[in-house]
Amino acid sequence: MNGELRVGLDIGATKILGAVIGEGGAVVAEARQDTRPGPDGVLETATAVLDLLAAALDGVLPPHIGIGIPGIVDRQRGAVSHAVNLGLGGDWFPLADRLSGRLSGRCGATVIVENDLNAATWGAHVLSGADDLAYLALGTGLAAGLVLSGTLRRGAHGAAGEIGHVPVDPAGGTCSCGQRGCLELLASGSALTAAWPAAGDVPPAAALFAAAAAGDPRAVAARDRFAAGVADAVRMLGLAVDPAAIIIGGGVAHVGEPLLAAVSAALRAQAATSPFLAALDLAGRTALLPGRAPVGAIGAALIGNAR
Amino acid sequence: MNGELRVGLDIGATKILGAVIGEGGAVVAEARQDTRPGPDGVLETATAVLDLLAAALDGVLPPHIGIGIPGIVDRQRGAVSHAVNLGLGGDWFPLADRLSGRLSGRCGATVIVENDLNAATWGAHVLSGADDLAYLALGTGLAAGLVLSGTLRRGAHGAAGEIGHVPVDPAGGTCSCGQRGCLELLASGSALTAAWPAAGDVPPAAALFAAAAAGDPRAVAARDRFAAGVADAVRMLGLAVDPAAIIIGGGVAHVGEPLLAAVSAALRAQAATSPFLAALDLAGRTALLPGRAPVGAIGAALIGNAR
Repeated sequence: MNGELRVGLDIGATKILGAVIGEGGAVVAEARQDTRPGPDGVLETATAVLDLLAAALDGVLPPHIGIGIPGIVDRQRGAVSHAVNLGLGGDWFPLADRLSGRLSGRCGATVIVENDLNAATWGAHVLSGADDLAYLALGTGLAAGLVLSGTLRRGAHGAAGEIGHVPVDPAGGTCSCGQRGCLELLASGSALTAAWPAAGDVPPAAALFAAAAAGDPRAVAARDRFAAGVADAVRMLGLAVDPAAIIIGGGVAHVGEPLLAAVSAALRAQAATSPFLAALDLAGRTALLPGRAPVGAIGAALIGNAR
Repeated sequence: MNGELRVGLDIGATKILGAVIGEGGAVVAEARQDTRPGPDGVLETATAVLDLLAAALDGVLPPHIGIGIPGIVDRQRGAVSHAVNLGLGGDWFPLADRLSGRLSGRCGATVIVENDLNAATWGAHVLSGADDLAYLALGTGLAAGLVLSGTLRRGAHGAAGEIGHVPVDPAGGTCSCGQRGCLELLASGSALTAAWPAAGDVPPAAALFAAAAAGDPRAVAARDRFAAGVADAVRMLGLAVDPAAIIIGGGVAHVGEPLLAAVSAALRAQAATSPFLAALDLAGRTALLPGRAPVGAIGAALIGNAR
């Protein structure tokens, strides 16, 4: 009965989101838990999410579990390292084996592990139907994932799409990567928070866009600077890779249409002086995913199909 | 006898270079003529080059002719437009049909037309043996071609690799494309000539590198600024696309090893402050093509295999 269902886990620093996914990316069940850090904490939280999903399916988990997780991933071994925000250090943590061990006796699931941005990019590919796309993730940092002509592009060193660390201003500040003037300093959740610190429980991006919509001139200026930075990222992807679609995701994308409107306006402003750039119609290719589907969990569940 | 041979023409603003290519990219015969501009001029020059090649082959041309030409190419129709330096304007010039017409009665050759940078990129793929590469062409302008996992990446709008028009300095000058601070203003033949104008018949790049090697401090500074710009281009390709190899070509690459040494030094200097960048080993992935093979003609001859 569950042969066509798959489980996806999107492991993040604050929560683990799990979903049972059917044909075409349909979400059959969802569950989430706050992440406990460290190898044992991650394992316990993941198991708890899987228990909740199993409970939603009369106790039987589908036999394929895909995991998206930050850090450096060894897909062959199902292991992860350097996921600093999860409390996972330089040693390889054999996540697939450890989780399989926990599940043994309950189900003989295959567990695969993938970098979280690659998983989300695959999810964006499934949800959008676009066969050729860049998924621009505006999270704490800035990076893109690529699906080119239907194939996930990881790159020779796993660095494809790492445009956040391309310097774009010799007079810019120092980046955490050690370079100066990186694009990430302009267009990322961190950049936005620095420009418009959170007040209370409202996320900084939501607060900034609300204040700008209300006409606060400082907020309008900060929003437009941020949107121009995101437009810089879209342009860099458009010129370097030229994907058919550029899909904006990540936490900042929860702002929704006002974000897309601001970025589109910035893209049109870029192109106003350049017929070359105008002909590429980057604004017309840039989009958000519809709704708030768990793109990372969907991609983690289905990306095994990609290999 | 000629069944395994192919003809490649590399049509440039100053000359048309033709070559008969055998298995693996081996050059069997070569010919060149100064380019006459305009549709009829290009056609006459191309025919003259083909006549020379035929003469080298006992009068019989191989039945496949591939052409690399600047401008916008409609591969289906074998037509070209907007090759400004060739005197070809906005109207489509049906180069394949016109050339086939000239050759009819002599050979029933298939003529295919490809953008010259794509042709050269395919030639670099053949000559280097690299299956995953960016070909960074330092010509009058700056652009890259991409072969990713063995497939030529053109992009959704034919713009993949157009990194020359990514702005990298808000305080930079105005680019011919209408934007400000484009990478092409730092790393291109034009940028080099502006920094070190030609004296006599020596190409500016050769003159600059010779003067720098002789210890002229102004030349050393100009060379190092140029090399830093090329390193910026390599880094952008490395972070956006992450190809296994980055091969530097174009007219400026005729400088040879001293160019590669300067660019490698600039790449190491970039990475000195950034463990992230150092781990990507961009200097170790950057290379020149060996010798002075006619990479554009070789690629034009063989790129038909790619489809």
